[in-house]
Amino acid sequence: MAQPRFLIIADGAFGPETSKTAVCAIRYVPERVAAVLDASAAGRTAQDVLGFGGAIPVVATLEEGLALRPTALLIGIAPRGGRLPDAWRGWIVAAIEHGLDVWSGLHTLLGDDVELAARAGAKGVRLFDLRRPPADLPVSNGRARLVDALVVLTVGTDCNTGKMTAQLELLRGLDARGIRTRFVPTGQTGILIAGWGIAVDAVVADFIGGAAERMVLEVAPGAEVVLVEGQGSLLHPGYSGVTLGLLHGACPAAMILCHQASRRLIGEYHPGEAWVEIPPLADVVRVYEGAASWVHPARVVGVSLNTYDLSERAAVAAVERAARETGLPATDPVRFGAGPLVEAIAQAAAHRRAAGSPPPA
Amino acid sequence: MAQPRFLIIADGAFGPETSKTAVCAIRYVPERVAAVLDASAAGRTAQDVLGFGGAIPVVATLEEGLALRPTALLIGIAPRGGRLPDAWRGWIVAAIEHGLDVWSGLHTLLGDDVELAARAGAKGVRLFDLRRPPADLPVSNGRARLVDALVVLTVGTDCNTGKMTAQLELLRGLDARGIRTRFVPTGQTGILIAGWGIAVDAVVADFIGGAAERMVLEVAPGAEVVLVEGQGSLLHPGYSGVTLGLLHGACPAAMILCHQASRRLIGEYHPGEAWVEIPPLADVVRVYEGAASWVHPARVVGVSLNTYDLSERAAVAAVERAARETGLPATDPVRFGAGPLVEAIAQAAAHRRAAGSPPPA
Repeated sequence: MAQPRFLIIADGAFGPETSKTAVCAIRYVPERVAAVLDASAAGRTAQDVLGFGGAIPVVATLEEGLALRPTALLIGIAPRGGRLPDAWRGWIVAAIEHGLDVWSGLHTLLGDDVELAARAGAKGVRLFDLRRPPADLPVSNGRARLVDALVVLTVGTDCNTGKMTAQLELLRGLDARGIRTRFVPTGQTGILIAGWGIAVDAVVADFIGGAAERMVLEVAPGAEVVLVEGQGSLLHPGYSGVTLGLLHGACPAAMILCHQASRRLIGEYHPGEAWVEIPPLADVVRVYEGAASWVHPARVVGVSLNTYDLSERAAVAAVERAARETGLPATDPVRFGAGPLVEAIAQAAAHRRAAGSPPPA
Repeated sequence: MAQPRFLIIADGAFGPETSKTAVCAIRYVPERVAAVLDASAAGRTAQDVLGFGGAIPVVATLEEGLALRPTALLIGIAPRGGRLPDAWRGWIVAAIEHGLDVWSGLHTLLGDDVELAARAGAKGVRLFDLRRPPADLPVSNGRARLVDALVVLTVGTDCNTGKMTAQLELLRGLDARGIRTRFVPTGQTGILIAGWGIAVDAVVADFIGGAAERMVLEVAPGAEVVLVEGQGSLLHPGYSGVTLGLLHGACPAAMILCHQASRRLIGEYHPGEAWVEIPPLADVVRVYEGAASWVHPARVVGVSLNTYDLSERAAVAAVERAARETGLPATDPVRFGAGPLVEAIAQAAAHRRAAGSPPPA
């Protein structure tokens, strides 16, 4: 099918920390973005707001957006818990009536909404729920530890620190070096970009690991490196279960630790709710390596920083400090390139090939 | 409504380690059990098979069971992943046609099965899905850490080690001492016995912690102790995500470590699939205290052993060894009474009252 051309809803929240799906669509598939709907930033461009994305306009009303001839509405912000705010229902109905498909990463599945499904059916448009889980997932049992490929999971000090972005930058860098690499999307934005995947935070809880295991087993044959998009944080009071299930289901041998350099509290992007302090990065490395070891050992091999809100000088200093504190290669892959992390993964993959994959335990 | 009188399906699996829901119903609500269906044990009684349960008969066929005038069919075994085996559908249909309600703890929700729902509707019987999650769960954010009550979570080396049983024995012991105690059921069997609760392994993954948090906040006012039924194990390659989400959502201050003394591998009750070795108990204590501390500190205050398959002498030795290895009070609460654990919890609750609950962070 033809690629969609999106009108992205990010109302009141279009910005680098508050509209992850919108931002990542603009970064990785800008050719599919017609406009962003956010009255609070209307009249500006994506470039103005994000520092990239060129002339993609921000509009104030649905009507202005529809005038730019999108073929689909994309829900571009993921409210906490992922549910559909009542106010957005009117936009979705109007979009359907204008003949647009609707793409959504919300936990509330649009296709299960009787009214929306009926309206979509009547207009002949489609509702794509990026978080709809498959019906037949297994319980994981560590089978992913047995693949030949080097499985790399991004892990974080918090949500929304660049775990998907790091993998997409690594994918590009490893591809460029001729290393056969596959990306495993585990969240709605990764699925939107890659066109497949399972949102592990939306499956029935018993099957978090099983979803990761199935995807790793699916792409591993023939690959040298499998890059699994991480989710949440072991330190996050709301999302740690998803993070641990994904870690134990994917059975990585290597991890990349992702951190927003300026952030001090877990969930600081939800003002007033954050209370868990982010420990020193070296401690976070120990947390992840310890938790992995309960099932299958994995090492953190690099640190990926998000420094978008720092000056160039502060960003360089943050990267140097992260490398010094952890003794690991570090970079902001978007700002300074993924080179040091690509090198670390390439070395780990070469070492794995040389050593042969470990025998079944 | 009148209490149901169950015909329990446990075909081919009726036994202490293989039919948790059946066994716990017989232990805690035997007056509600008419018979158990398991051709492989037919002609015996619950007492013969389990060592308790008296004259409750085991029958070979659905017809024999129906002759004992049950009012409801109970799915008494939880197959891995919790789905409905095809062979059981015939029994369920036959039970509905005989006018029985059907209670199920499977992940496959019977009420969502178009054929079964239609048949039940036509006969005027009810389908109770013990694992059906509420629709509006929150994401947890550590709010449960702020309650005055002492929250106690059972944690395990593995699944099916006695985490619910330990809490029910503690509930009885603490009640007997006049300590105002509430039980929070988090799995289908606890819900069956207590008549309320949320199966945290069946909610959408993002809401594991939120389900636990909601239940703790609901029962804590007026309680001195809140006993939360644990699930899974941080060391289990399939279920660890549920375990960590529950730990961080419930925010216990105290934990009871549950272990089946004879078990050496995680998931050994699934023959041929187990491969993760259970570490020494003192190491498991450190794993749980470490993982709790990422969000909210909690101490393991006692060890609950399941020794059903050991001789009296071996069981006594296992309890002594667990106490020595961990430096904690230990018992098999079913075999030797919950006394040492009741005492540990009562002391922790008294200490908490004396100290005052901690101020909000």
